[in-house]
Amino acid sequence: MSDKPVVLALSGHDPSGAAGVQADIEALAHTGCHCISVITSLTAQNTAEFRSVTPQEPARFREQLNMLTGDITVDACKIGLIGSIELVEIIGDYLASAQFPVVLDPILGAGVGADLSTPGMVRAMTECLFPHAGVITPNLEEAQTLTGRSETKQALHGLLDLGCETALITAADQAGDEVINTWISATREIHSYRWDRLPGAYHGSGCTLSACLAGRLALGDPVRSAVETAQEYTWQTLKNAHRLGKSQLHPERFIQ
Amino acid sequence: MSDKPVVLALSGHDPSGAAGVQADIEALAHTGCHCISVITSLTAQNTAEFRSVTPQEPARFREQLNMLTGDITVDACKIGLIGSIELVEIIGDYLASAQFPVVLDPILGAGVGADLSTPGMVRAMTECLFPHAGVITPNLEEAQTLTGRSETKQALHGLLDLGCETALITAADQAGDEVINTWISATREIHSYRWDRLPGAYHGSGCTLSACLAGRLALGDPVRSAVETAQEYTWQTLKNAHRLGKSQLHPERFIQ
Repeated sequence: MSDKPVVLALSGHDPSGAAGVQADIEALAHTGCHCISVITSLTAQNTAEFRSVTPQEPARFREQLNMLTGDITVDACKIGLIGSIELVEIIGDYLASAQFPVVLDPILGAGVGADLSTPGMVRAMTECLFPHAGVITPNLEEAQTLTGRSETKQALHGLLDLGCETALITAADQAGDEVINTWISATREIHSYRWDRLPGAYHGSGCTLSACLAGRLALGDPVRSAVETAQEYTWQTLKNAHRLGKSQLHPERFIQ
Repeated sequence: MSDKPVVLALSGHDPSGAAGVQADIEALAHTGCHCISVITSLTAQNTAEFRSVTPQEPARFREQLNMLTGDITVDACKIGLIGSIELVEIIGDYLASAQFPVVLDPILGAGVGADLSTPGMVRAMTECLFPHAGVITPNLEEAQTLTGRSETKQALHGLLDLGCETALITAADQAGDEVINTWISATREIHSYRWDRLPGAYHGSGCTLSACLAGRLALGDPVRSAVETAQEYTWQTLKNAHRLGKSQLHPERFIQ
């Protein structure tokens, strides 16, 4: 009775709705998929400030994940903010038997009262999640933290050396009139994508990108095509963004 | 930069996405509003079983609510599953200074390991929330628990006696070929709405109804018109529902 693929989002919750699981739900709805989700962490944040992360208690998270995936068949998985090493390990265990594409958006923001980018967290993500990641989507700073390599192409190779199948490094966090994102394929071909840098600051662009990407993979797109479609979609959501809060803009995910 | 009204959802999270905050996000997007949310409780449930409720720690909930509402202006509020008396009290404090319409969906499901329908919870909801409820949307069983009156019209009057401005009792939980919902206005006129009962069981119809209703009020509709539009919308989402899980169907909230 449903011809919509199902994408499992393992993400944090952002009350503003600009990022986190609401970004996933909206981007996946627009992409023609149904989102199901287990919340990794609740956060206190708004468009101006990121204050705290409260990860779920691991046994609760596991119970919710088991009940959900025992009932509904998953066609792709998108992983966003996690928030604790224990949850990384549970997700790794779950993905070990997965037969579907996985998009990993490795959120490593520091200084928010949670250990999102400690060496232990980086090691856990590398060991538990990278072997299952069909696409990893860090920004350059995250890629540098994960690989120890400062240059984009070297970092892309580093991500594949660590077990990811393909990698897209986004450059919205860098300076310049253009945003140049760079993707490395499983055969190590490198493709660059140039986007006009839009004025203003946006909240949730990375979540939007990775969710749409997971949705396109669930629909059966080849990886390169999905990577390209997700970037184009994300750019359009930013171009049509709304000012709901006092600082960063909300992407408009229901573009025509 | 945004002409979409903002609706604050204070709801639980359902991993299946059929109910809870995902129902709110989707119904509000379709209604032309933007959803922002603070999660009251995380739940372990699927389309066949409701197993447990984990309410947020009150101080965390308050921090998230304060940060969010200090940043983004709210045009209407929808309250769903809450999960603890402490959270009811925090929400009541917040609504005491509210200048926007409030829709209260008083979820009192019992037997799920949380005290959702204890006398203390009923008293807290009545004292803290009813004075702020522009519309309350219980099913008949919930209305009976809240008012101690078994008959629909008496229960409607009872809800207004307890402080709600208007009340819609839904009858999807009752038997019969038709679902007859009944609304009482602020001047105690009673209107009944008959809907063909659809085959099958659905997950999240009440969340869908109350979210759309809050969205229509945020858009400026008169209450009676919003009550009617939300019922029609909900019926259509059920008529177009999907089978994602093994038991109850998922409403399709992005109907054309």
